[in-house]
Amino acid sequence: MDSEKKGKKQHSPGVSSPEGAQQIKHRSICVQLRLFSPIQPVIVYTATMSTEKCFVDGSAAPGPVQQDRLRLYSMRFCPFAQRTRLVLHAKGIKFETINIHLQKKPVWYLEKNPEGLVPTIETPAGEVVYESSITCEYLDEVYPEKKLLPATPFGKAKQRMMLDHFSKIIPHLFKISSAKRKGDDVSGFEAELKEKFTKLNEHLVKQKTKFFGSDTITFIDYMMWPFFERLGMFGVQHCLDHTPELKKWTERMLEDPAVKATMHSTENHKVFFNSFLEGEPDYDYGL
Amino acid sequence: MDSEKKGKKQHSPGVSSPEGAQQIKHRSICVQLRLFSPIQPVIVYTATMSTEKCFVDGSAAPGPVQQDRLRLYSMRFCPFAQRTRLVLHAKGIKFETINIHLQKKPVWYLEKNPEGLVPTIETPAGEVVYESSITCEYLDEVYPEKKLLPATPFGKAKQRMMLDHFSKIIPHLFKISSAKRKGDDVSGFEAELKEKFTKLNEHLVKQKTKFFGSDTITFIDYMMWPFFERLGMFGVQHCLDHTPELKKWTERMLEDPAVKATMHSTENHKVFFNSFLEGEPDYDYGL
Repeated sequence: MDSEKKGKKQHSPGVSSPEGAQQIKHRSICVQLRLFSPIQPVIVYTATMSTEKCFVDGSAAPGPVQQDRLRLYSMRFCPFAQRTRLVLHAKGIKFETINIHLQKKPVWYLEKNPEGLVPTIETPAGEVVYESSITCEYLDEVYPEKKLLPATPFGKAKQRMMLDHFSKIIPHLFKISSAKRKGDDVSGFEAELKEKFTKLNEHLVKQKTKFFGSDTITFIDYMMWPFFERLGMFGVQHCLDHTPELKKWTERMLEDPAVKATMHSTENHKVFFNSFLEGEPDYDYGL
Repeated sequence: MDSEKKGKKQHSPGVSSPEGAQQIKHRSICVQLRLFSPIQPVIVYTATMSTEKCFVDGSAAPGPVQQDRLRLYSMRFCPFAQRTRLVLHAKGIKFETINIHLQKKPVWYLEKNPEGLVPTIETPAGEVVYESSITCEYLDEVYPEKKLLPATPFGKAKQRMMLDHFSKIIPHLFKISSAKRKGDDVSGFEAELKEKFTKLNEHLVKQKTKFFGSDTITFIDYMMWPFFERLGMFGVQHCLDHTPELKKWTERMLEDPAVKATMHSTENHKVFFNSFLEGEPDYDYGL
């Protein structure tokens, strides 16, 4: 089930950015804004635009960011952007979302982020921050509520090292998926992935904590989660079968309100991923 | 000229780690420790071991880290380890160095850093931190003297984004060098590199500062420097010819005491790099 859609349906639309809303009425392909007004501990969504459809090349730039919120430039199925969405939700930060068509990027988006990738955060003061882990560290430092990174330098370093390790697993997931698609034998790749998962499992066993940093969710859990949410999409869900602690971690993560608020169903991920692999990513799938 | 050698020659040896020194006497291939006892603003070296030669597989592990210093696991020609050495020197942190034979790593080193890479920092409390930018952020946070990262979250984010951009230039340097070696036409690659340098040049012009973060050296300058020190080694020094501000930045960096204390001459870099490309890296070259 698509939790983002679910969230949107629960609330009535409202318009807090009139010039943006005006643009939306006159365009067919692009445009959306969705505003989240989270009230802790329950996240409440305030949908301000009629759709979450992505902004494409040629679409007018959105107006300035309003004083009472952040803006997130995102793509609904992007695991890196999901990291930032998880942190925004977990910390109860008020934000609006602008989804970007990553194959046909608006020129004004490249002016904000020359890399043209998502996520990007923009503040009312015009500060622009991008790269998933950089946005998340920035948010954690700016918003002191519910700190996700440890306070000590060594605590922070440990989480950054875990993230660095984990970053080397990510290309592996895409490699297996691509090899499967070509009909290649992936048993060797899968054995490697299982070994990596075994190490993560050992970490949890050795540390005796429910999550990777402690008994509550911290930064590293949110950085890793989007890729575990997509194991079914990559076709490697079974690689968790021999790592019971890691599997339990995924089950615990599924109970987290921020995870629930940002996740897509495996079915939806698969449909999007197939469209992506076929060269025609359906960024607006399900809307 | 090899500044590391220069530094070592200026000071008489002493032994502060008896068990380590004992091991050194009985081994031919391995072993060295060099201790720096920097007194700001002039860096003073205290050489405690007779050589800086690298520890290879089979060599005995060094003893525990002494209470009054940090230990850096390094490799004399590694640009990533040089980042950490620059920060250690710049902040006047007392540390000792253990160089690692990266092709024949001691088993005990893999127990400290499972990736087996350098740099790695070890504290007297047994805290182990690795990955160059992580070690540097850790050092900057633990040692408040001469802060290298800005105090504000956005200031930090900007430096991290610059580092992320720059990280994408690094593989390019190796690619050009490798293509040159094969006798391939590198004009296309060099044009790309020049374009990237032009962007860095524009950054300095636009910002009107002597260094990348401000008018004094900050974190990002030290993260980038080791690769600029090696432009001659990569055979791309001429790519700076049309980027005068960037060239001036390299000249200013060469005046920095930490750069002077950690640098190797282009000639020495070339000899090491050739041995590396031939598959027999001479980690102890020049000792």
